[in-house]
Order: sequence, then structure tokens, then C-alpha cells
Amino acid sequence: MEELVKYKELVEQGLNDIQLPVGPANLYEPIRYILDIGGKRIRPVAVLLANQCFNGDMEKAMPAALAVEVFHNFTLMHDDIMDRAPLRRGKTTVHEKWNTTIAILSGDAMMVKAYKMIERIDAQYLAPVFSCFNKTALEVCEGQQFDMDFETSSSVTISEYIEMIRLKTAVLLGASLKIGAITANASVSDQEKLYSFGVNLGIAFQLQDDLLDCFADADKFGKQVGGDIIDNKKTYLLLSAQNLADSSDKAKIETLLALKGNDESKVSQMLDLYRKLGVDELTRTEVARYTELALSSLKEVSISQDMLQSLYELADVLLVRES
Amino acid sequence: MEELVKYKELVEQGLNDIQLPVGPANLYEPIRYILDIGGKRIRPVAVLLANQCFNGDMEKAMPAALAVEVFHNFTLMHDDIMDRAPLRRGKTTVHEKWNTTIAILSGDAMMVKAYKMIERIDAQYLAPVFSCFNKTALEVCEGQQFDMDFETSSSVTISEYIEMIRLKTAVLLGASLKIGAITANASVSDQEKLYSFGVNLGIAFQLQDDLLDCFADADKFGKQVGGDIIDNKKTYLLLSAQNLADSSDKAKIETLLALKGNDESKVSQMLDLYRKLGVDELTRTEVARYTELALSSLKEVSISQDMLQSLYELADVLLVRES
Repeated sequence: MEELVKYKELVEQGLNDIQLPVGPANLYEPIRYILDIGGKRIRPVAVLLANQCFNGDMEKAMPAALAVEVFHNFTLMHDDIMDRAPLRRGKTTVHEKWNTTIAILSGDAMMVKAYKMIERIDAQYLAPVFSCFNKTALEVCEGQQFDMDFETSSSVTISEYIEMIRLKTAVLLGASLKIGAITANASVSDQEKLYSFGVNLGIAFQLQDDLLDCFADADKFGKQVGGDIIDNKKTYLLLSAQNLADSSDKAKIETLLALKGNDESKVSQMLDLYRKLGVDELTRTEVARYTELALSSLKEVSISQDMLQSLYELADVLLVRES
Repeated sequence: MEELVKYKELVEQGLNDIQLPVGPANLYEPIRYILDIGGKRIRPVAVLLANQCFNGDMEKAMPAALAVEVFHNFTLMHDDIMDRAPLRRGKTTVHEKWNTTIAILSGDAMMVKAYKMIERIDAQYLAPVFSCFNKTALEVCEGQQFDMDFETSSSVTISEYIEMIRLKTAVLLGASLKIGAITANASVSDQEKLYSFGVNLGIAFQLQDDLLDCFADADKFGKQVGGDIIDNKKTYLLLSAQNLADSSDKAKIETLLALKGNDESKVSQMLDLYRKLGVDELTRTEVARYTELALSSLKEVSISQDMLQSLYELADVLLVRES
């Protein structure tokens, strides 16, 4: 775990060192603000880690690591507007602290800032890193749009849901690992295996997030357990429950969905239904299956046992959520 | 003018040929919609023209030309949200036709799409084109932020205003010319002269736009004359009037600014004041001065008489506005 802690510190240092102009203050202060809110920095750590897996020069990976984290935070800034989220990691969101116009424009500038960091990639790696970054950035937008569309759709399938979380969450983790590997001159085959590891791990992470939102230990979870149920969010659990329910349980789910979010019994009744239908166990099985898929990609990559250990630890950090 | 018409047709063809995925429809349909609204396509034409000035291979400039136009339209999509604009060239704006969430996210995807086009630049020109594009994109965001800030600021100076329009409007025209020149392997010195031509032309264009909004022939202008006055927009004319006015005229301006926009005499009274203070003439002088600055940069570029003529025509298209 020491390696990961060291990489995270390097990332924090790098983010801290990003030079932002003083003005216009309303453009740049929100960028500094959201970067300073913090987070696990999983994606930039993944870039550095993948670079080290192939004995790369970490300096060559750092601009890409920072670009990925800045891009990720741009998506958070814009997603928070769309979700009307008041808080992000306990801090007031940018559109609430400033306003929506500023959050739109600061987000735009942040995306450009991410690309400006890609500029600093070595010429020999620029084209493939740029291409992977672009492809992924567009997919993340697609994932967010599917997520928005699902809010008002009455017929979301499980496979559509998995595709949505793959695009919205998982591909950026895969791309982070791939980009790190590119900057260390890894073979295309190894790049793709790391990408596959990241994508499957990302899907496992999101499914586990859905599960924890319902069944986490409230003291450890750090946010309201049952929030997704209150919001009628179409999670893996709800969609699976709707699939597995007989007509009587289907009607019960519909009745619960029609309840206002502040109805106290809504969460407990839905959780009872989930348990009865076994969607908690089903979700655990799917988390395990995607984790296994992720790890099986790793087995074929020829890297040292130490680096393999660090990648396992990265998976643990993601899947064993403390907050 | 035939050359410019030909380049515009090539740009329209190129925009038309951009492949967009079918789904998510709410992400991609607004992109196609705004690209199809049309426009003068000045910026992509400038890319192609600059490329031809140095006998470049136009194919090598086309991805950059399309990237610049897609980027420009992305800024329009987001600016329209911020300005709460109901119409763009007589068509319903994206955030009105769909909604704000979709306009934010489609705009984001559009910016990424622009970068995906930059990917297709020849390897030898990728780094300088990418760098110029990034620098410019960030400046455009800064310009838009300054413009937003000015709405609520009581002390905007003329030089701050010129800097705002330079960033928001002019640098993208300069960058278009510079990028076209890069793709034809022009010298850095020639690139910079074309850039300077474009930036000064862009400033002249915006100042003339301010002037036309007040003093255009209503039949030819294509939008409501006096719109800026109704909106209390801090244009070059208003800021100059406030600078030149004595205390009595200053008070009169303040009284007019306090009037509701639908007061019919507001526009005519403000125009009378502008005439009395000579800000119409002052603006014309400034348009001429920036145009002169633009043309003087051109004189030092070693290109054929034919191409010089085409660049003059580009300036004419911008400065002699029909709509």
C-alpha cells in the first residue's frame, strides 16, 4: 500500500502545483476549489502505477495523470449542475457556491486545462494518449447522457444499465491505466489488458456502490443509506428487483416508487423486498464476477510480482469503500 | 470572392460528413442541429485560406478547419444557456428546444468532438496545432467569463472591454489563420503575422457589430436595432459615452439605463446622446484603426497577390455585414 500512498502524494503535489491565472477569478477560483476538495485520486494514481508497471519514467506519465484527474473533476462540476447536487464530499458544489453560469464556464475551462496538460506528453506518446483520452472523454459524456435519459425512461434493461456505468464510470479508469502504460512504451496488447482490467474493475466498483447505498453500515458509509431508494434511482438493484418480481411484488415496487421520498418506511420496505427477491446477493455475485474478469486480464500481463501486488491494492482501495 | 465561396462549400461538405453516433440521441442530435443552423463559416474558411496562402495541401488543413467550427458552435451552445437566448439565427436554441442539461452535455461532447478532429492532423503539425488550439480555447472561456462579469460590474474600462472582445471573439479568428498556416508549414514569423491580422480584424469586427447594433439600417441588419441599448449591454459605445459625458449627460445616461427595456424612447434618446457625444464617429475611427492594424500585418507576409486578395475579401465579408 506504501506505493499507492506515495503516488497519491505525488498527484496531490502535482495538482497543487498547477498554475492557474489570477483572473478572471470567477473562471479560475472554482477550478482550484474543486481540485482542493480532494478525493481518492484513484485515476491519476492508476496512470502512474501503470507507467511503473512497465518501468516507465514517471515524469512522462505525470502530465497525463493530472489531465485525467482535472478532466474527472470537470465532469463532476457539470454533473453536479445536472443533478442539482448541493454538496460534493461535504462541500458546497460550485454551482451553489457561485452560480450555474460560472459552473458551466469553469467546467469548460477545466476541460481545456486537461487538454493543455496532455500537450506536455512526450512527442512519441502524444498521438496515442490524445486519441485514448478523446475516445474516453466522449464515452463519459455518452454515459452521463444515458444516465440522464434513464431518469425519465420506464424501460431500462440491465444490459443498458451496465453499458451506462461502463461509459460513465468504468472507461475512465481503464483509460487511465492504458495511458500510463502508453507513457512507458508498453505493448499494445499489455495496454489493452490493463484497459480491460480497469473497465471491469470500474463496473464492479459502481455495482458495489449501488449495493452499499442500500446495505452499507451507516456509520462507515459516510452518506445517507437508502439515498438511491429515496430518489427512485434506477440502480442495478431496483432494475433487478423489477425483473425478478412476480406481479404482486411488481405492484408493491410501483407503490413504493410512488411514495414521496421522505416517507420513512419507503427505504425499509424496499430493502425488505430486495432481500426477499435476493437482489442483494445477486449484486454481490455480479461484483465478484466483474472483479474476477478484471483480475483475469491482469494475469496475462507480464509485470513484476510487486507491481501486480500494487494493482491488486488499487482494486482493494476501490472495492473496499470506507466512505 | 469565388475562392471564399468554394472554401465555404468545402467546409459545409466537411461538416455534413461528420459522422455522429445515433445514440444517445439527446447527446448527438443537438450537435447536428446546431451545426446545421449554418453561418458564415468564417473561421474554418480562414483555416483553409491560410493553408492555401502557403501552398499547403488543403486536405491537411480540413480536420483543423472543422475542429475550429465545431469548437465555435460549442461555445455558442453554452453561451446561449448563459445568455438565456431563445433564438440563434432565427432558430430555437438548444437549451430551449431540448433543455439546459442537454445543452450543457451536448456542448461538452461537442468540445471533445472538436479535439477528436485535431487528432487527424498530420503528426508533424499535431503538437503546434494542438497547442495553439488549447491556448485559444482557454482564452475564449476567459473572454466569455469577463463578458459575464461585466454585466454586473459598474466600472468597466475601455481597455478591459477591448481585452474582453479580443479574448471572446478575436483570438479564435487569429488562431484559425495561424493553424491553417501551420498545416502548410509556413514560417513561425508568417504564422504570427496572420495571427495578428486575424486578431485585429476580429476586434474591428466586434466594434463594428456594436456600432451596427445601434446605427444599422434596420432592413439590412436582420435583428432588432438598439437591442444592446434595451439590454443595457456595456458595449464600446456605452462605455465611451460614459467616459466622454459631462456630469449632466452622465446623469441622463444613468436615467436611461434605469428605464425598462420596453420604454420606446429609451433607444432613440440614447442614440441622440451617442451622436451628441460623437461615439458613433469614435467607434468608426476605432474600427478603421483596428482594420488598418490588421492589414499592416498582412503587408509583411510573403504570399501571392491572389491570396492577398482573398484575405482582403475575408476582411470584407466580416466587416461589411449583411445580417
